Amino acid sequence: MKLLEEKILNEGIIADGSILRVDTFLNHQVDVNLLKAMAEDAKEYFRNEEINKILTVEASGIAIATVFAQEFDVPLVFAKKSKAGNLGDEKYTTSVKSYTYKNEYEIAVAKKLIGKEDNVLIVDDFLAEGNAVYGLIDIVEKAEGNVSGICIAVEKGFQNGGRNLRADGYKLYSQSIIEKFEDGQIIFR
Amino acid sequence: MKLLEEKILNEGIIADGSILRVDTFLNHQVDVNLLKAMAEDAKEYFRNEEINKILTVEASGIAIATVFAQEFDVPLVFAKKSKAGNLGDEKYTTSVKSYTYKNEYEIAVAKKLIGKEDNVLIVDDFLAEGNAVYGLIDIVEKAEGNVSGICIAVEKGFQNGGRNLRADGYKLYSQSIIEKFEDGQIIFR
Repeated sequence: MKLLEEKILNEGIIADGSILRVDTFLNHQVDVNLLKAMAEDAKEYFRNEEINKILTVEASGIAIATVFAQEFDVPLVFAKKSKAGNLGDEKYTTSVKSYTYKNEYEIAVAKKLIGKEDNVLIVDDFLAEGNAVYGLIDIVEKAEGNVSGICIAVEKGFQNGGRNLRADGYKLYSQSIIEKFEDGQIIFR
Repeated sequence: MKLLEEKILNEGIIADGSILRVDTFLNHQVDVNLLKAMAEDAKEYFRNEEINKILTVEASGIAIATVFAQEFDVPLVFAKKSKAGNLGDEKYTTSVKSYTYKNEYEIAVAKKLIGKEDNVLIVDDFLAEGNAVYGLIDIVEKAEGNVSGICIAVEKGFQNGGRNLRADGYKLYSQSIIEKFEDGQIIFR
């Protein structure tokens, strides 16, 4: 998606050679007009899918997923990084490895919020190894729901998440795909 | 705000006598149409303020704050619960006590995202003791910005946050205020 790629080129910062910071418009400060354009673009891409729920995981995907929920006119559910049992016992949980923080954490969705009647669009800001997305897929499948599609703002094409999800047959749409970083520049696929 | 109060009465669940769960429409599943109505209501309330930034803290305030940012047509910034130094060194930080989880955590905003030119509306889902809001105020003040107002979806009127913020002179608007829980019922102020 051209508008998003331009924004990344203009405002994205490469840190430590391989970390892309998009914190002026996507995941710390948020440009809601950009999000609206991204949501319209995703709606067009998934126009043939009967999506009735948007699913993301806290925290940085929530802003994007909120605007997607408006555009698709469906509820948003964000999986919680569970602690203190605040959801009660009736929840689907799964374990997610964090590539950024080198740890593992649990995410959860209350059982009453997802079920076999749901056609879910999974939304997130970044796709690297795909661990968070596979965690969300696991929750949808435990709930016997259907993963209608996956929409990602920024895919790191040099990591394995995108390739694996496509190989597994999921309908993945990445609105930008970074092929590589070269001489401090961002090269899109 | 009547629509929000009705939603709380219809779908809110009182757990353990004093915890209000609004996870079907506000902070786990999210009703974006309700959020739009809340944003319009807040825009009307703060119509005389020259707000140029919405500030919240991850995670459960983000969805609300995103829709507020659309309505006010300004950027959203969400403070990060900092870890791994992912923001770099140039950040304002403060420490926040969690009433729910009985611990203390740090929140941070990158310095480049907030400054003395900013008139900030602080937005969050719940106000209890006010610790998160006071943390956000501390960050705005460290940045020499101006707190133009504070908008909260659900104030727990039987805790001290709202009283303290009003006593300190902040322009606080709580879209619903729970006076008490009585016989398993929610009584609004």
